[in-house]
Amino acid sequence: MSIKGVVYHDEHDVSIEKIDEPDLQSPNEAILEITTTAICGSDLRMYEGRAGADEGMVFGHEIMGTIEQVGDGVESLEPGDRVVLPFNVACGFCKNCEEGHYGYCLNVADPPGGAYGYGQMGPYQGGQAEKVRVPYADFNALKLPEGDEHEEDFILLADVFPTGWHGTELADLQPGESIVVFGAGPVGLMAASSAKRKGASEIYVVDRVESRLDLAKEHCDATPINFEAAYPVEGMTDAHGGPVDKGVDAVGYQAIAGDREGDHPYDPKREDPSYVINHLIEAVMAGGKIGIVGLYTSQDPNEPDHVDEQGVLNVELGRAFEKGLSFGTGQCPVKRYNRRLRDMIVSGRAEPSFPISHRVSLEDAPEMYERFDKREEGVTKVLLSP
Amino acid sequence: MSIKGVVYHDEHDVSIEKIDEPDLQSPNEAILEITTTAICGSDLRMYEGRAGADEGMVFGHEIMGTIEQVGDGVESLEPGDRVVLPFNVACGFCKNCEEGHYGYCLNVADPPGGAYGYGQMGPYQGGQAEKVRVPYADFNALKLPEGDEHEEDFILLADVFPTGWHGTELADLQPGESIVVFGAGPVGLMAASSAKRKGASEIYVVDRVESRLDLAKEHCDATPINFEAAYPVEGMTDAHGGPVDKGVDAVGYQAIAGDREGDHPYDPKREDPSYVINHLIEAVMAGGKIGIVGLYTSQDPNEPDHVDEQGVLNVELGRAFEKGLSFGTGQCPVKRYNRRLRDMIVSGRAEPSFPISHRVSLEDAPEMYERFDKREEGVTKVLLSP
Amino acid sequence: MSIKGVVYHDEHDVSIEKIDEPDLQSPNEAILEITTTAICGSDLRMYEGRAGADEGMVFGHEIMGTIEQVGDGVESLEPGDRVVLPFNVACGFCKNCEEGHYGYCLNVADPPGGAYGYGQMGPYQGGQAEKVRVPYADFNALKLPEGDEHEEDFILLADVFPTGWHGTELADLQPGESIVVFGAGPVGLMAASSAKRKGASEIYVVDRVESRLDLAKEHCDATPINFEAAYPVEGMTDAHGGPVDKGVDAVGYQAIAGDREGDHPYDPKREDPSYVINHLIEAVMAGGKIGIVGLYTSQDPNEPDHVDEQGVLNVELGRAFEKGLSFGTGQCPVKRYNRRLRDMIVSGRAEPSFPISHRVSLEDAPEMYERFDKREEGVTKVLLSP
Amino acid sequence: MSIKGVVYHDEHDVSIEKIDEPDLQSPNEAILEITTTAICGSDLRMYEGRAGADEGMVFGHEIMGTIEQVGDGVESLEPGDRVVLPFNVACGFCKNCEEGHYGYCLNVADPPGGAYGYGQMGPYQGGQAEKVRVPYADFNALKLPEGDEHEEDFILLADVFPTGWHGTELADLQPGESIVVFGAGPVGLMAASSAKRKGASEIYVVDRVESRLDLAKEHCDATPINFEAAYPVEGMTDAHGGPVDKGVDAVGYQAIAGDREGDHPYDPKREDPSYVINHLIEAVMAGGKIGIVGLYTSQDPNEPDHVDEQGVLNVELGRAFEKGLSFGTGQCPVKRYNRRLRDMIVSGRAEPSFPISHRVSLEDAPEMYERFDKREEGVTKVLLSP
Repeated sequence: MSIKGVVYHDEHDVSIEKIDEPDLQSPNEAILEITTTAICGSDLRMYEGRAGADEGMVFGHEIMGTIEQVGDGVESLEPGDRVVLPFNVACGFCKNCEEGHYGYCLNVADPPGGAYGYGQMGPYQGGQAEKVRVPYADFNALKLPEGDEHEEDFILLADVFPTGWHGTELADLQPGESIVVFGAGPVGLMAASSAKRKGASEIYVVDRVESRLDLAKEHCDATPINFEAAYPVEGMTDAHGGPVDKGVDAVGYQAIAGDREGDHPYDPKREDPSYVINHLIEAVMAGGKIGIVGLYTSQDPNEPDHVDEQGVLNVELGRAFEKGLSFGTGQCPVKRYNRRLRDMIVSGRAEPSFPISHRVSLEDAPEMYERFDKREEGVTKVLLSP
Repeated sequence: MSIKGVVYHDEHDVSIEKIDEPDLQSPNEAILEITTTAICGSDLRMYEGRAGADEGMVFGHEIMGTIEQVGDGVESLEPGDRVVLPFNVACGFCKNCEEGHYGYCLNVADPPGGAYGYGQMGPYQGGQAEKVRVPYADFNALKLPEGDEHEEDFILLADVFPTGWHGTELADLQPGESIVVFGAGPVGLMAASSAKRKGASEIYVVDRVESRLDLAKEHCDATPINFEAAYPVEGMTDAHGGPVDKGVDAVGYQAIAGDREGDHPYDPKREDPSYVINHLIEAVMAGGKIGIVGLYTSQDPNEPDHVDEQGVLNVELGRAFEKGLSFGTGQCPVKRYNRRLRDMIVSGRAEPSFPISHRVSLEDAPEMYERFDKREEGVTKVLLSP
Repeated sequence: MSIKGVVYHDEHDVSIEKIDEPDLQSPNEAILEITTTAICGSDLRMYEGRAGADEGMVFGHEIMGTIEQVGDGVESLEPGDRVVLPFNVACGFCKNCEEGHYGYCLNVADPPGGAYGYGQMGPYQGGQAEKVRVPYADFNALKLPEGDEHEEDFILLADVFPTGWHGTELADLQPGESIVVFGAGPVGLMAASSAKRKGASEIYVVDRVESRLDLAKEHCDATPINFEAAYPVEGMTDAHGGPVDKGVDAVGYQAIAGDREGDHPYDPKREDPSYVINHLIEAVMAGGKIGIVGLYTSQDPNEPDHVDEQGVLNVELGRAFEKGLSFGTGQCPVKRYNRRLRDMIVSGRAEPSFPISHRVSLEDAPEMYERFDKREEGVTKVLLSP
Repeated sequence: MSIKGVVYHDEHDVSIEKIDEPDLQSPNEAILEITTTAICGSDLRMYEGRAGADEGMVFGHEIMGTIEQVGDGVESLEPGDRVVLPFNVACGFCKNCEEGHYGYCLNVADPPGGAYGYGQMGPYQGGQAEKVRVPYADFNALKLPEGDEHEEDFILLADVFPTGWHGTELADLQPGESIVVFGAGPVGLMAASSAKRKGASEIYVVDRVESRLDLAKEHCDATPINFEAAYPVEGMTDAHGGPVDKGVDAVGYQAIAGDREGDHPYDPKREDPSYVINHLIEAVMAGGKIGIVGLYTSQDPNEPDHVDEQGVLNVELGRAFEKGLSFGTGQCPVKRYNRRLRDMIVSGRAEPSFPISHRVSLEDAPEMYERFDKREEGVTKVLLSP
């Protein structure tokens, strides 16, 4: 039997193909019939050939749907249950899982850390497909209320809502504090939205796409800072009256930016991988903390010439030390947060779906990859319906 | 009236001079008659002209003694009280002090953070002298038991014992975890000793001076790793069976080291400012945390040619992100810890004095600066008696 | 010189009297000209003769105003500054203050803990008066923006807003969790409001006064539970589908309630001091935490006959242990929270003034005490303007 | 096939009987061949008929041994592996397990919380037997080094070492703080030993059995307080110079003690269930925290006449509130700690076996129950070898 899925062939080349229908490989697994999946910014990095994806791989790590089949060892799930999966695949019982580092499970891949449809993160088929196999299903599936309510909110529990939240956790954001978020893509918007929900007194969001900054303003009560219009830290400190308490990097190493000293003009094609972290070091006050959830990598086979392919960045560590700053990094351990964020959605306290710009059928995925990859304005977050 | 103190003139030039006797400048101050003071590694950085010290400055930020005089607003101290001072000068009531960031007090200097006898950290005379003025005396003086017992343990409460402890706090070391400490100078030894006291299951200490590694082994139950004998991370992971849970950088940017790739031989004169942090990124396991208490700076007027004078380091942030590492940095907020560490000394649970190698009279300070600066083996920690 | 103040004579007997104008007794103090003060539920306890207030005492611990005069040792304040005081008087440098236990300062009273105008909490004149002396002024005064904006929000920073917040901190409320608050007086409303601001997914508030429950519903998005209409825990668990994650006791030992087993009817005059804590033990799920900010006392000279005057309560500790519950208690350390809560008010994220029902002149205080003491419906929170 | 086990018949009546050999009931389970098991104080409570044990039940929740067989879904274990089990049975994926409340797993029993061989904690056969079935084996079994080294240390990882540790965690004991532990049975000794390992500056242990107090002094550097010789809080505060920072209740409701006011003499047969908690309220300083790991219960079918059978105790909550004390309670979530405590044993940093007084064959269990139940001096901790 076969199902349809989004298959990667080569740089900028994905298509809808028939793939083998998944089956149970252990009594602890389940098969999920997918109702909604999404394209993530990190899918784009693979699409661009910058993350070592293998030919033939099925993409997709934001997945929700209905349980179709469960193994003999699965206790808490049964066919028909509606669930959303964390993008991390985790066993639930290794040392790292025990300590809540679900993004670095020791049993699913080496180096540690698994995900669906992701290069070098284990052998797990992606979810931009009609079905997917769910390892350690009791541990990895989060149950949702029956029906189809909140479908577009719940799908964001797979990755971007918890990841944005994680940024504010790594920054140890406390109610009443001020925070700056670099990046107004889906993760940055979720970080700003999380900051609002946690009671931040002031929220600044830095980006250059006006439509995204508008979302930050409207949905997160954030003050938008367009870094094309002004040097971003000055814009922020002028508005705030000085550096802020905390910061989030929701951009990562593919930051596109002008030179800080102004000796060459802003160039929308020029990547500066240390642009965001060094600006955060400047923007955050002494004793502050910075959460880094935008992606950094130690190997980019296709990076621009001027960017170090080993992920060695020019970090202003001297300045950071003088200010006593702290930094948290890494992929979000979704399970730390998804249950409570789900409850916030159910009770109407959170409506994370606002960045979703498109919902199309699975067949349209290749076209949406192309448009998303071109950073077409208005393509913020794309859902796929298998 | 005048007193004697260690006065800085120029690179590698300090002498004992007569200086003005300090007097009270506010009702909240006290005058301390100093019984013991010490030379710190960060004094050396000023001595070497690498930290912007001003001509005429009195050095010294590790200070203990007897209260001689108190202002009208001082309530908890009276003449004759024996006290030790945190090296930080802090007001106790600004936003940063309220949040425990005593090293970044907003009222004592700009940029935030004060210290006795330290370049660009406020106008406070150093304590390598007979007397010193103590601002915000109720807040800054920690009372000690009467008499002269534990004098050589208590003096370490001014800086190195709390600073080593802080390294393990920034690394969030938990009982039963494993840890690696880079550097076996006084701060590294105090970090290793703190790790032992907190119940670490395994402690690795990396240095190249055998006598210091011996102290780590004997007093901290640490496994010594000599990085001249072997590539340090391999040495450590071989002994441990993999990466450790946590790490402390007790070296800073003046790390002396060979090139990692081996393309030039080990050179004891070559500084590699990112040597320690990048090794820690390799040595610590996914999800781990790293405490950076070795000094990094954004300006070094006298750095070797190949070292960036702005403190911009080549940090393997890509690798760090892939492992989800966290980093804490900065000067120790001594008051967070000194009361409890004092109680551990009083009850015999901590005897931090083991790294002290010399105790000489204040007059011998210039000679000891010279010997300490040459990294003469056996000169680990020097106390001065005014 | 004399000023006017609310003076206590005997049970149910206060009047406006001339009292000595306060003057500076130490260089660290300031004199505050009071613009707004308030009557607190704990003032009522003294008014009723149930808290050992001394004849001649000036009441009032919720105080804001303008600095009139400062001592030589005060650095951060000057005449004209607008400030609000925490109700706790604290030195800022004792062991308890260092650890954030500002409600248990060792230097202001014995047993530890000071407050303005409060029996057995030090010699500090209350603030239901025209002026008040502020000890340790740099530490105890929180600066406010110039002008008179937010006056009715800021006055609640003295006690009830931080105290309600503290309830949710003692309960370790996390975003997305559910919580029940017993009591919809000002502190209970502030606890519910704090829970909302922290992102609680569901909030239940238990009281018997409909107008207060309406405020909880309208301003805190809470589900009201009237415990006269139904057994409160059943009402709550029916609505929620089981026990909640966390609980707050904003009532204390003067709880008025019927017997749990129903063997005597509800009696609005009958106090049951363990009514709230035992209901919370039932209402909160295994592993949950309970914050107790409603007042309990070890001595009540005027308690009803059936109530133990030593504060020894019949607590269902067996049940609590079986559920692994945790309990935090005690007076709020206002300074832990007031700066950030102020910033939330300034930026428009918090408007705590909604429970304020009356603002009258100081002269009307005796009448308002009488009406408040009778629990006249609609008298929720009373401000006084000197 | 049958194996031998300790079977409960009635009050004070257990015997060695043949029981059915356990078999796998789910693919996630394993069968363990037991090498060492132990008798716990809570077994005694069932033995005395005070905890609702059912006729025919097999006792025993401290269990270690060798894996004999694993189900198809078990991944991390194979026959021959040496493991120790937490006494809690937990699924690893319910809400409570996710939050670390392994003692209150929602899937193993109702009310929540499972254990081997324990009344009303699920259908799990006890481990005072030759073999036992291990539910959720990947999650519940902690691997140990091959061989038989440290057998007597590792068996204590099943319950008393983590439970004593948990007492100090609930009390939030910080290095350098002082602490008092009530009870010098195995759990109390483990709490005192944990306090030492965490760097407590002073440790007081209260009991009336000199041989146990001697163990506390010798192995935990504790100051012993014999409460038959002196009023315990006075003894402790005299030695310490005032109340201590933190406290642990390692006794529970079956405390045997004299009346506090001295109006009836000390009576070794008289239980006073609130004796320990009220003494702790007195012994711990304002702002302190108390960890309650001694057992309290809501139903004791066989309690002495004067003790409330519902577990409603006379708690001095008024005094507790005035001091701002916090309380944590409940059964230890062993998995939070056992991995790190194991590593401390392996590296020689912890040797918890010192309270073990007897190691006998399984056949001798009935005799040892009898002797242990009589509180025969010297019978502190009994191991059984099947």
